[in-house]
Amino acid sequence: MTIDRTLHHFPLDPASRQARLALGEKRLPFVEVSTRYWERPKELTRLNPSGMVPVLVEKPADGPPLVLCELRAILDHLEEAYPDPPLLAPDPAERAEARRLLTWFERKFEFEASGYILHEKIEKRLLGLGSPDLANLRMGRDGLKNHLFMLDDLLQAREWLAGKRMSFADFAAAAHISVIDYFGDMPWREFPAVKTWYMKLKSRPAFRPLLSDRWPGLHPAGHYDDLDF
Amino acid sequence: MTIDRTLHHFPLDPASRQARLALGEKRLPFVEVSTRYWERPKELTRLNPSGMVPVLVEKPADGPPLVLCELRAILDHLEEAYPDPPLLAPDPAERAEARRLLTWFERKFEFEASGYILHEKIEKRLLGLGSPDLANLRMGRDGLKNHLFMLDDLLQAREWLAGKRMSFADFAAAAHISVIDYFGDMPWREFPAVKTWYMKLKSRPAFRPLLSDRWPGLHPAGHYDDLDF
Repeated sequence: MTIDRTLHHFPLDPASRQARLALGEKRLPFVEVSTRYWERPKELTRLNPSGMVPVLVEKPADGPPLVLCELRAILDHLEEAYPDPPLLAPDPAERAEARRLLTWFERKFEFEASGYILHEKIEKRLLGLGSPDLANLRMGRDGLKNHLFMLDDLLQAREWLAGKRMSFADFAAAAHISVIDYFGDMPWREFPAVKTWYMKLKSRPAFRPLLSDRWPGLHPAGHYDDLDF
Repeated sequence: MTIDRTLHHFPLDPASRQARLALGEKRLPFVEVSTRYWERPKELTRLNPSGMVPVLVEKPADGPPLVLCELRAILDHLEEAYPDPPLLAPDPAERAEARRLLTWFERKFEFEASGYILHEKIEKRLLGLGSPDLANLRMGRDGLKNHLFMLDDLLQAREWLAGKRMSFADFAAAAHISVIDYFGDMPWREFPAVKTWYMKLKSRPAFRPLLSDRWPGLHPAGHYDDLDF
């Protein structure tokens, strides 16, 4: 059965990036529609009442379209409808660990690290709110380091973040980190295990589209798309 | 196989309440450990590095315990390990709708409504931060009304929040609303469809333990445990 897939997303949004990585790893072709969601475009709010990205629309050749709003609905649907390759381990403990980390990135990491950095570096620019506040940036960078210590510890003991298998947890971490890296704010040298893990992810075909993302007026750091950084 | 289950939770935490409702509906016996998580008790942080509730521990008679940290890991595990009764519909569109709403409550509803109210009415009391700020409470109550208009619209068209079946989405909404109702802040009269739906949920056996929750120094509204309010 042919299904036309359209992903409504914003290239520098960590949640959108997780959806793109999952689609890419499962080798599901899709059309990308980049949306300025902060302007509340009608096409998007008609699909998703929250007005947020990502939204994935699957249109089968016959039958109604399936509209998947918000990252959680997208990831869970992809894993249920296209289980091969799996992006959650079969072992219940490793599945639980992946899901614990998904919550960690969505709440703790975003509140304590990436939220500060991305607000100052992206949102302020897009919304015309002036230049970054240095105290906020420092808060974000300090928070980031605390989280990177935790990740580095995990990755010294495990091949992938949740255990033996690459999972949604790796995509969550890599999506957040890749946007921070776009702005050159990743202290790579201090966290060698995180760096090795990120190099592995960065060289996967599913990651390539993220490395060619550019947004007008927001320039990536020189090493951003370098596989050997 | 006998499994000993222990849920570490806080009675007035909406996420903890969702875990209790799911366990109750699936008729899985468990021991409740009420925890003052804001004091960062060692027993809890050893189990969950984020220090948050809920955490569910399943101990089989033989073999290692399975530690499920954060609500998402708990709900997804319960649905996978104990599919009967299902708490997500089989239809992919209805599953996606339930997951969209889970994200809605976890982010939008919490940021715009319950977060304000519960910070002022619970956190400030527990942390000794003084009396509620009236401007913040008003913000929370205004946000709450906007969300209730949306829920009332949905519930005029559907039997349950995500469609034809009771699901995790109903538990998410009811868990948040029930804590707000504990403090007497639910404007029931203006939202008859929400009220009818809440009465249905309130009368389920799984809901009963929530209605007998009391926390020292925090008194529930008079109608809180009344099935016919």
